[in-house]
Amino acid sequence: MSDITPETVLDGQELERLDAYWLACNYLAAGMIYLKDNPLLKEPLKPEHVKQRLLGHWGASPGLAFMYVHLNRLIVRHDVDAIFLAGPGHGAPGVLAPVYLEGTYSEIYPDRSEDEEGMRRFFKQFSFPGGIGSHCTPETPGSIHEGGELGYSLSHAVGAAFDNPDLLVAVAVGDGEAETGPLATGWHGNKFINPARDGAVLPILHLNGYKINNPTLLARLPHEELESLLRGYGWTPHFVEGDDPMSVHRQMAATLENCYLEIRRIQEEARQAGAAKATRARWPMIVLRTPKGWTGPKEVDGHKVEGFWRAHQVPLAEIHRIPAHLEMLERWLRSYKPEELFDENGRLRPELKTLAPKGSRRMSANLHANGGLLRRDLRLPDFRSYGVGVPEPGKLRALNTKPLGELLRDTLRRNPGNFRVFGPDETTSNKLDAVYQASKKLWLEEYLPEDADGTEIAPDGRVLEMLSEHNLEGWYEGYVLTGRHGFFATYEAFVHVIDSMFNQHAKWLSICREIPWRAPVSSINLLITSTVWRQDHNGFTHQDPGFLDVVVNKKPDVTRIYLPPDVNCLLSVADHCLRSRDMINVIVCDKQNHLQYLDMDAAIRHCTKGIGIWDWASNDQDGEPDVVMAGCGDIPTKEALAATALLREHFPDLRIRFINVVDLFKLTPQSEHPHGLSDRDFDSLFTVDKPIIFNFHGYPWLIHRLAYRRANHRNLHVRGYKEKGNINTPMELAINNEIDRFSLAIDVIDRVPRLSVAGAHVKEKLRDRQIECRSYAYEHGVDLPEVDNWQWPY
Amino acid sequence: MSDITPETVLDGQELERLDAYWLACNYLAAGMIYLKDNPLLKEPLKPEHVKQRLLGHWGASPGLAFMYVHLNRLIVRHDVDAIFLAGPGHGAPGVLAPVYLEGTYSEIYPDRSEDEEGMRRFFKQFSFPGGIGSHCTPETPGSIHEGGELGYSLSHAVGAAFDNPDLLVAVAVGDGEAETGPLATGWHGNKFINPARDGAVLPILHLNGYKINNPTLLARLPHEELESLLRGYGWTPHFVEGDDPMSVHRQMAATLENCYLEIRRIQEEARQAGAAKATRARWPMIVLRTPKGWTGPKEVDGHKVEGFWRAHQVPLAEIHRIPAHLEMLERWLRSYKPEELFDENGRLRPELKTLAPKGSRRMSANLHANGGLLRRDLRLPDFRSYGVGVPEPGKLRALNTKPLGELLRDTLRRNPGNFRVFGPDETTSNKLDAVYQASKKLWLEEYLPEDADGTEIAPDGRVLEMLSEHNLEGWYEGYVLTGRHGFFATYEAFVHVIDSMFNQHAKWLSICREIPWRAPVSSINLLITSTVWRQDHNGFTHQDPGFLDVVVNKKPDVTRIYLPPDVNCLLSVADHCLRSRDMINVIVCDKQNHLQYLDMDAAIRHCTKGIGIWDWASNDQDGEPDVVMAGCGDIPTKEALAATALLREHFPDLRIRFINVVDLFKLTPQSEHPHGLSDRDFDSLFTVDKPIIFNFHGYPWLIHRLAYRRANHRNLHVRGYKEKGNINTPMELAINNEIDRFSLAIDVIDRVPRLSVAGAHVKEKLRDRQIECRSYAYEHGVDLPEVDNWQWPY
Repeated sequence: MSDITPETVLDGQELERLDAYWLACNYLAAGMIYLKDNPLLKEPLKPEHVKQRLLGHWGASPGLAFMYVHLNRLIVRHDVDAIFLAGPGHGAPGVLAPVYLEGTYSEIYPDRSEDEEGMRRFFKQFSFPGGIGSHCTPETPGSIHEGGELGYSLSHAVGAAFDNPDLLVAVAVGDGEAETGPLATGWHGNKFINPARDGAVLPILHLNGYKINNPTLLARLPHEELESLLRGYGWTPHFVEGDDPMSVHRQMAATLENCYLEIRRIQEEARQAGAAKATRARWPMIVLRTPKGWTGPKEVDGHKVEGFWRAHQVPLAEIHRIPAHLEMLERWLRSYKPEELFDENGRLRPELKTLAPKGSRRMSANLHANGGLLRRDLRLPDFRSYGVGVPEPGKLRALNTKPLGELLRDTLRRNPGNFRVFGPDETTSNKLDAVYQASKKLWLEEYLPEDADGTEIAPDGRVLEMLSEHNLEGWYEGYVLTGRHGFFATYEAFVHVIDSMFNQHAKWLSICREIPWRAPVSSINLLITSTVWRQDHNGFTHQDPGFLDVVVNKKPDVTRIYLPPDVNCLLSVADHCLRSRDMINVIVCDKQNHLQYLDMDAAIRHCTKGIGIWDWASNDQDGEPDVVMAGCGDIPTKEALAATALLREHFPDLRIRFINVVDLFKLTPQSEHPHGLSDRDFDSLFTVDKPIIFNFHGYPWLIHRLAYRRANHRNLHVRGYKEKGNINTPMELAINNEIDRFSLAIDVIDRVPRLSVAGAHVKEKLRDRQIECRSYAYEHGVDLPEVDNWQWPY
Repeated sequence: MSDITPETVLDGQELERLDAYWLACNYLAAGMIYLKDNPLLKEPLKPEHVKQRLLGHWGASPGLAFMYVHLNRLIVRHDVDAIFLAGPGHGAPGVLAPVYLEGTYSEIYPDRSEDEEGMRRFFKQFSFPGGIGSHCTPETPGSIHEGGELGYSLSHAVGAAFDNPDLLVAVAVGDGEAETGPLATGWHGNKFINPARDGAVLPILHLNGYKINNPTLLARLPHEELESLLRGYGWTPHFVEGDDPMSVHRQMAATLENCYLEIRRIQEEARQAGAAKATRARWPMIVLRTPKGWTGPKEVDGHKVEGFWRAHQVPLAEIHRIPAHLEMLERWLRSYKPEELFDENGRLRPELKTLAPKGSRRMSANLHANGGLLRRDLRLPDFRSYGVGVPEPGKLRALNTKPLGELLRDTLRRNPGNFRVFGPDETTSNKLDAVYQASKKLWLEEYLPEDADGTEIAPDGRVLEMLSEHNLEGWYEGYVLTGRHGFFATYEAFVHVIDSMFNQHAKWLSICREIPWRAPVSSINLLITSTVWRQDHNGFTHQDPGFLDVVVNKKPDVTRIYLPPDVNCLLSVADHCLRSRDMINVIVCDKQNHLQYLDMDAAIRHCTKGIGIWDWASNDQDGEPDVVMAGCGDIPTKEALAATALLREHFPDLRIRFINVVDLFKLTPQSEHPHGLSDRDFDSLFTVDKPIIFNFHGYPWLIHRLAYRRANHRNLHVRGYKEKGNINTPMELAINNEIDRFSLAIDVIDRVPRLSVAGAHVKEKLRDRQIECRSYAYEHGVDLPEVDNWQWPY
C-alpha cells in the first residue's frame, strides 16, 4: 500500500468542495423525496410545495452519494474507467443526484434540464406516477443493477469485471443485503477474478447499521469478527468510519486512493506473468461505517432518526398533518444551503461542476453500463457442421447435448474475451465437456498434482463452475449487461433456485425495451438439462419441470422456451438463441442418449417453424386424421411416437397425425405472444374437432394455460409430470405419470369412438405390458431392453 | 476447553472397536451401491451378485459414517439427546449403514432384518425401483433433512435446536453445499441461538475436497483463511484432519468430546443468568478434512480415486464390462473383512453392537427426528374475539393484517417454547407488530441505548427476523419437523426466493404422508403480504404474484391457497391453518387499509365453504343471473364490487351474481384436489352458460389452469396481473392490468348481448373515468379520493 494518509490526502479547498458537492447530492436526494415545487427554496417552504404522498428511502441515500462523489474524485485523478452498482438500489436518490449533477441526466432527458424548472421536474418525477421508480431502475443512466430485490449486487459486479481488464467496478453492498444468501456467497466471487485478464471489483460494504426496523447483523459484530469474516472471504478490508463528514471525507479519499493503487499493483504484477499464470489476489475492499440518513434530521418528535432505523424511509412523514414537520423539513433542506451550491438558475456552481469526470468517464455515461453499445455479435461457427447424420428418423441414438458442447467449444475459441460458459459443477455431467478443449474451468486457488488427470482447471479458463446458481446467474447477467455473451447449463430441478433472479432480469429487460437509449444486450441462454424424466440416480427431489411455469408469467417480448427433441434441433435452437438479443431463452433438453429424428435440413425447417407435423410419423396424408398425437420434449416425443407405432400395429386404418412442438409459445394465441400461431394455423394443425393427445415434458396444466382459447381446446388431453416419482427407472416414471406409450395409446382408444369395441382387448394388452415393464424394473433395476431400445419401426 | 487430547482419549480396544464399527458401515455403504446378492461375501463375488445399474454416491459416505459413529460414542458416554442431519444427503449409504447397524431400520422395516437375508434386501432396495432413494429421504429413520437439494442443512439444524434446550443437533455440511448462497448465510444462524433456552448446533464441515468433477472452494483455501472465515461467522472451529483412520479417530474423539464439554459449559453459564440475559456464544464447530471416498479404491485404471473427485459416485462403474473391475470390487469389499464384523447370520458382532446407543438415544430413533410424535396442538385463543364489527358490508375500512398480529401475539403468549414467528425485517411493515407485546425480536448481538426506543429486540425473543428468506424458511422447517409450530409473513414478490425450498418441503411432506411411522407435523403457514397491487413505494420489482403458480404444481394433499378478502376472513383462515398438519398453507392478504365485508359469523361460514355467493352484492335472487362477477383476493374483490355497483347504476335491471373465492383450490375439479368443488356445485355457482368475469389477485392464466375442465369454462373471462406495472398508484396499476372497476364493467357490457346497444355510451363514460383517474394520479401522485375511498353503496 502507498503512504497516502487521511492527514495528507485533501487540501482544504478540495475538501470543502468535495463536501459541498456531496451536500448538493444530499439536497437533491431530499428534494426528490419531498418537493414538487420551489426546488431551490427561493420561497419559504409551503405545504403546496411538498408532494402529497411521500415515497422513497432517505436512509441509504447520503451514503451512496458519498461513495459516488469520492469515486468521481478517483476517476478524475487517475482517469479511471469505472462503473457503480448500488446494492441498496432503494437508495436511488443518492445515485440519481450525482447523475443529475454531472449532466448525464439532462443530456438523456432534456426536460429535466440543469436549471430550476428542470430540477423541479427532476424532483417531481421521482417515485411519482408517470415518473421513475424509487430504485436504480433501467431509466437511471449508468445503472446495470436496479437493487429492487436484494442480494445480487456483488455477483453482478463480478460479472461486469470479467474480461474487462481496465474496468473498475465499484459496488455498494448494503448491510441489509449482506444478510441474504446470494450476497453471502457472492463474496467468493473474488476466487473467479483473474487479475491479469479481468477488471477489478471494489466492494464498499456500507454499514449504516439498520434495515427497515432492525439493526443489521454485520453492523453489530465486533470489529475483529467482521474483519475476520471479510479476510476469510479472501478480501483485504479497509475501514472508513465516523459521523463527522470532514474526517470521513479524508479517510475515504485516502482509502480509495490506496485501494486503487493496490488494485493496479496487483494487476500489473499479474499482467507481467500473464493470465495463464495468474493466482488469486487478496483484493482490497472498503467497509464504510456511517450513520443511516446521514445529515438528515437528528431527532423527530423525541425519537432518534439520523443513525437509526427511523431514517430508513421518509424521516418526516407527516408534513401535511403536522405544521412543525414542515418547519423541520425546511430547516433540514436549508441546512444544505442550496443558494451556495446552485446558481440563480439552479445550475451547480462551476467550481463544483468541475469536480465531476467528463464525457464517458462519468459513471453515468460509461458505455459498459449500457453494454449493448459495446456488444459485438458472436463469431459463431456453422452449427450445421456439428449435426448428426439421420438417414432414417427414429432409429439412431445420440447424446443430445454432446454436439452442443462442441459448438460451444468452437464459440469459445472464436470469441476470446466475449463469451463464457456457466454451470454449477455439471458441465461434464451434462455432457458439454468438449468446451474444455477450448477453455478450462477457471481455478485460481491451490493446484494439486492429481488435477492434471482430468480436472480440467486453469487460471485463465472461461468456463465458470461453482455450486451456486445464484453466483452463476448473477455473473452471467453482469457479463451480458456489459455487452458480452454467454451460455448457462444447469439441472432442471434446481433452476428454481434462481426463479427470483429470472423474474427480476425479465422485468429489467422488459423495461429496457421501452427505453430508447438502452441498446439491446445479448440474451440469457439457459439450458435446462438433467431433466425430470431421467432421475433414477437422484429421485424425487430432482424432479421438477416447473421453471417453465415461472417463465410464462413474464412479458412475452422477453421470454422464449424451446424443447428441441434431438441433436440437430438443439443445435439449430442454440444457434438462434446465441444470436438473439434482450431475451431469456430457456432450452429444455436432456443430456442422455436419445433417438434422433431429423436430419439437419429438416431440423432447421422444423425449428424455424417451431411446431409442425412429422409426416414420416403420420398416416393421415389422404385426409383428416382420427386423432392428433403431439409430443413436446425429448422423452415425451419418443413415448408419443412409440404410442403411435403401437396404435398403428393394432389399428392399421387409424389415421394418426403426429405433431412435434419445439417452440412452446407457438401454442399461445398470436395476440398474446409474438411467436403465437394464428388460430387458423393452429386449427389446421390440431383440427377443430379431433381428439388431441398431447404428451408434454412439464406439468400438464401449462399446456392448457397456453392453449385454452383455441377452438379445439375441449378435445385437448394433456399428459405430463404429475409429481408421481421416486427412485424410478425412466419407463416406470413415465408409467407413473402416464406419459408412457401404453398410457397414451389407451388415451387414444378412449377418445376415438370407433375404437371403443375393438379397443377393449387392446387396452388390456397394453396394461399387461405396463405391468411387465414395472415387474422387470423391480427385478432387474433397469428397463426392459426392448422398451428402452425401442426404435421407430416404419 | 478440557484437556482431553488425541493421545489420551481412546484406549486401544475402544479405538479398534470404533474403527471396526466404522468399517462395518463402509462395508454396508459399498454393499448398498453394488450388491443384490451374496451380501456377506460368503461366496466368491460373481457378476450376478452385482446390480446391473450401479447408482449412489460413495464419495461422501465414509465421512458421514465416520461422524455418525463418533457421535454415537459421545451419546453413549454422556447420555446425549442428539440428532444428525446430513447436508450431503446423497451420501445416504453412510447414514443408512449405521442406522441399520443400530437396529432401528429392522425395527421399522422388519423384512430388512439384521441377518443375511435382511442385509441382502437392505442392499438391493437401495436406489432400486420399488426401493428407497439415494438420499436421506423421509424413509430414513432419524432423518429430517433429505439433502437432495443442497444448501439448507444448517438452517434446518438451527430450527431444530430452537426451544429444545437439551438437544444437540449435529449437522454435516458438505464443502460442495457450502458454496451455495443459502448455506453461506446459514452460518449466521448462530446469532439466533439463545444458549440458555435453545439447544446446540454442532456443524461438522466436511472438507472431502471435491464436488462431482471439481475441487471445492473451501477445501483449497489456506488453513488460516478458512479459520478466519469461520471465526468471522462467529464459530470456533476445531480441525480434524488426515487420512490415517487411527489418527483421525483419536483426533475426532477428543475434539468431539471437547466440543461437547464446551457446549455444555456455554449452556450452563447462560442458564445461570437466564434466557433474558443471554448473549451470543462462540459455539464450537468441527472441520473434518478426510479423503473423498475414504477406504475405497485408491486407483482405478491408472486414475486416482480415493481422495479425488473420481470417488464422487461409483468408483468402479464397469463391473459388468471389465472383469478386472469385478476383482477389484471383491478385493475392496473383502478389505473390510465382513467375516470379522458380522456373525455367521449376518448380525453385527456383539462387542460392536454394544457401541451404539440404545432405544430413543439412537439418533435414528430420536423422537425429535419424527417430530410429529412430540407435537402438541397449539393452545389457540378464540380467533373470533379479534374480529372487527361489520354492521354493513363494504362500508368500513381496516388494516387487514393488524388483528392477525394480535391473534399471533396471544398465540405466542399461550405457547411458550412451542410457537415462533418468522419474517425478513417486515413484521412491523406488515402490520403484525402486536406480536412484540408478547415476544420481542430475538437479538443476541450488541445493544445500543437507542434500541430502547421501539426497536423491540430482546435476547429471548421468539420473533425471528433476518434479511434472508432462506434462513427463515429453513429455521421454520427445522422447527416444525421437530414437532413445533410457526407462522411466516413475507413480501409477495420475494417469496420466490424460496420457491425451491417450498418445492422440496412439499415433496418431503407428500412422501411422509405415505410412510405410516412418520407422525404428522404442523403445517408451514406462509402469509404473503405487501402484495402486487400496492407498490407505489417500490414499483415493478416488487410486483410478482407468481408464487401461487409454483404452489399449484405440487401434490394436492399438501398444498392449500387462501385469499381472504378482509379481516374476519383472514382470522378464520389463519385459525384453520394453525390447526392443520402436514400442509403448506399459503395465505395471500395485503397489509393495507381495506374495505370490510363480512361480520365474523358470515366470515366463518364463507371461509368454511371456501367460495360462495355474496347475496348482499348480488341482485339475481329472483332467477338466473345475466352475468357472474367473481373476485378472488382483497383488491380484486373490491374492484369487482365497485364494477358491480357501476353496472347496477347504469343498468338497474341487469342481474349480477357476485361470487367471492377464498380457497383457490375450490376451482379445481374434485377429482384433482380434495378441496375441489363437484361439477354440480361449480355449475350451480357459476352457471353453465352465463358470462363470468373473474377478477383475480395473481396472473390470470392460473384460473384457467384450475378451471379449464368446468362446463362454463368457455365463458370464463379472467382479469389479473399482466406485468404491466411501474411506480403506479393502486388505481393506475389496476387500470394498466385491467382489473379496475371500469375495465370490469366494460368487460361485462362486452359480454352481455342485450347491453350491446345501450352499453356503448356507458363504455365511453367508463373510459373517460379511467382517463380521469390516471390524470389525477399524474397530477397529484395519489388516487382520486372518491375512487380510493369508494364504499359499497347499497
